[in-house]
Amino acid sequence: MRLSELFTKTSKTVPADEEARNAQLLIQAGYIHKEMAGVYAYLPLGLTVLENIKQIVREEMNAIGGQELAMSTLQPRDIWEKTDRWDDAKVDNWFKTKLKSGTELGVGLTHEEPVVDALAPYVNSYKDLPVLVYQIQNKFRNELRAKSGLLRGREFVMKDMYSFARSQQEHAEIYEKIAGAYHKVYARLGIGDITYRTVADGGYFTDKFSDEFQTVSDIGEDVIYLDKAKKLAVNKEVYNDDTLAKLGLKREDLVETRAVEVGNIFPLESKYTDALNVYITNENGKEKSIIMGCYGIGISRLMGVLAEHFADDKGLAWPASVAPAEVYIARVGVSAEVVKFADELYKSLTESHIGVLYDDRDVRAGEKFADADLMGIPLRIVISDKTVTNGQVELKARTSNETELLTREELVSRLAS
Amino acid sequence: MRLSELFTKTSKTVPADEEARNAQLLIQAGYIHKEMAGVYAYLPLGLTVLENIKQIVREEMNAIGGQELAMSTLQPRDIWEKTDRWDDAKVDNWFKTKLKSGTELGVGLTHEEPVVDALAPYVNSYKDLPVLVYQIQNKFRNELRAKSGLLRGREFVMKDMYSFARSQQEHAEIYEKIAGAYHKVYARLGIGDITYRTVADGGYFTDKFSDEFQTVSDIGEDVIYLDKAKKLAVNKEVYNDDTLAKLGLKREDLVETRAVEVGNIFPLESKYTDALNVYITNENGKEKSIIMGCYGIGISRLMGVLAEHFADDKGLAWPASVAPAEVYIARVGVSAEVVKFADELYKSLTESHIGVLYDDRDVRAGEKFADADLMGIPLRIVISDKTVTNGQVELKARTSNETELLTREELVSRLAS
Repeated sequence: MRLSELFTKTSKTVPADEEARNAQLLIQAGYIHKEMAGVYAYLPLGLTVLENIKQIVREEMNAIGGQELAMSTLQPRDIWEKTDRWDDAKVDNWFKTKLKSGTELGVGLTHEEPVVDALAPYVNSYKDLPVLVYQIQNKFRNELRAKSGLLRGREFVMKDMYSFARSQQEHAEIYEKIAGAYHKVYARLGIGDITYRTVADGGYFTDKFSDEFQTVSDIGEDVIYLDKAKKLAVNKEVYNDDTLAKLGLKREDLVETRAVEVGNIFPLESKYTDALNVYITNENGKEKSIIMGCYGIGISRLMGVLAEHFADDKGLAWPASVAPAEVYIARVGVSAEVVKFADELYKSLTESHIGVLYDDRDVRAGEKFADADLMGIPLRIVISDKTVTNGQVELKARTSNETELLTREELVSRLAS
Repeated sequence: MRLSELFTKTSKTVPADEEARNAQLLIQAGYIHKEMAGVYAYLPLGLTVLENIKQIVREEMNAIGGQELAMSTLQPRDIWEKTDRWDDAKVDNWFKTKLKSGTELGVGLTHEEPVVDALAPYVNSYKDLPVLVYQIQNKFRNELRAKSGLLRGREFVMKDMYSFARSQQEHAEIYEKIAGAYHKVYARLGIGDITYRTVADGGYFTDKFSDEFQTVSDIGEDVIYLDKAKKLAVNKEVYNDDTLAKLGLKREDLVETRAVEVGNIFPLESKYTDALNVYITNENGKEKSIIMGCYGIGISRLMGVLAEHFADDKGLAWPASVAPAEVYIARVGVSAEVVKFADELYKSLTESHIGVLYDDRDVRAGEKFADADLMGIPLRIVISDKTVTNGQVELKARTSNETELLTREELVSRLAS
């Protein structure tokens, strides 16, 4: 895209109403717009990052047999009453609304009940299972405080997956397969080395633990105890001798650190399926309960985590896998040669499906460089009278101070690698 | 996808709680699940159709310079009060909700105000315009009645685009460019020949007409007067001598017909930008109003229209551009040769990026054929002992009774064309 056509602009002013560094940077770089505390709009560059994260998650969920669907935001009350999750005294972060008739509706905060309800017509026999479904969509949670930018939203984007198995063993196999897919997601996002599977409380209807995926970060709301050698952590909420003994961990090997929860996987036993009266018949025609699990990844939260983690005093520094463009072309100078060279390079890279932000604006070179840095595009190419004389471009990685001069052919081969 | 793995199944039973043919068919074919009147979940095949429609719309909006963004569903009250659209007496189909603090929020029904608000930091000078932005997302409207399936939802998917121009002339050029893009969308969806630009009321803050795009259909809620030769129609609401004179239409050339509104384009003058205090300075530094337009396409409604229009007594019959798969492979028989032939064909078509539903289930041939018809997949391939003997497959289009025998090579070349 040509920056002369992109409607957003960068800003040097740190927004006064944002405490969180991720929101500050994303607003200054023109990626998001704050609607209210905990509610953001995604502007073109921000939406591209968000969609890139979604696509990585989608590919990994599809790779393990996940079937994508899209449940509604508006929620009928009855299915939530069956599981005793309608009452605000039980679930305290509902947004609710009303039909003209006065009938109360929920505004989707999670989807265990509606997913079970939607699957009910299709799940009767053991032959119909296992099933693994997921969706990627906006969720709504009525948070009292929302000051962490994209890390804790009242409206946020989440991938939620639900598994339905015939036995505890089948459930356990699916559960581990999904844990493996989660590790792949975080690795592709560039935070695989600082994201740990973390044992946490399983909730009130199972004796088992649940598992979180925690990314080590000073801004995290959670405290975890980390065994780096074993690549395993324990959430403070279950950090006790009993847990450590079960996991074979020793206090002396553990380091206390702050972390952000970027995913969780939960055994749900048969709580929701039983409550909504969805059972299977087994090989002998006998009615059996279904073993369910749920598996979340905070998509917009991950965008916030990446914005915080991959940043320096100049701005954002996206990993290539999610950046809104691979290359920032800074056209310096307005001579016919420079314009022609830059226009042609922009065209040929775009035709090769390489994402380009082309800074064709009539502004100072320093402003272009500052914008390339603030926006956090992985590679910056400078085309100036000097480089064009030798048929070259200057290439610099966002995270490096080294520049290189390359011919167009050398550049194309570098980008293809 | 293998049907043995797809969790949805078809049903012979017409759902008792649905009057609308589109919802009946889509539920029977396993495309959607009804959450409540006017609110549907999209199951895997339905989501694929919905995403295919979105992608066609997205491509055409991008082709005319539209920049995609994603506004929030939760809406702060203040910006809607500035345009006098908060009060339920003024806008009677809001869903509203509340923060814990008691502060009322809107649940997004349209986005003129938030889009203007989001653009405000970026639009100051005439140099910043024109701007054309759009989004594709769920909207929420508190309809009293919702009995038309996907044709009128309380929660529905919409593409809404907003243009910001420096002058009436610039606005008019953008407006016509978008009308052109809309025609391309309907043509790609297979309803170009029955969808007409239709002159309608411009609303209460402009003397101009607005334009609707109306698809001729018995189930339509609108009545239009159609000049087939001129490919232009007039909505009943403005059908009078004055309008006809302005448009150069004659009563005797017009045919009255029912139609479904599948898009609309609206001149908004400066109502919203003025009310939200967003102006530009012109070349002489003088403050000027911005001329705005808005442009909607009902994505989920289009899915309903296509489901109604492309159907017969056997079920759905999707146009290839939106079908969840191009090809339905019905594997008839379980001999090793048949299974091998079908598995290999499924693999090679999938690798060639041809969408395939592979019916590898252990059910009767008649059931497979009925499902292929009900699901509405454009092409059906039968692989049986008989066809395999000659190294052939049987090919039939959903909308034809003719079958053909083709070798694998002939089939691949046919599908590539």
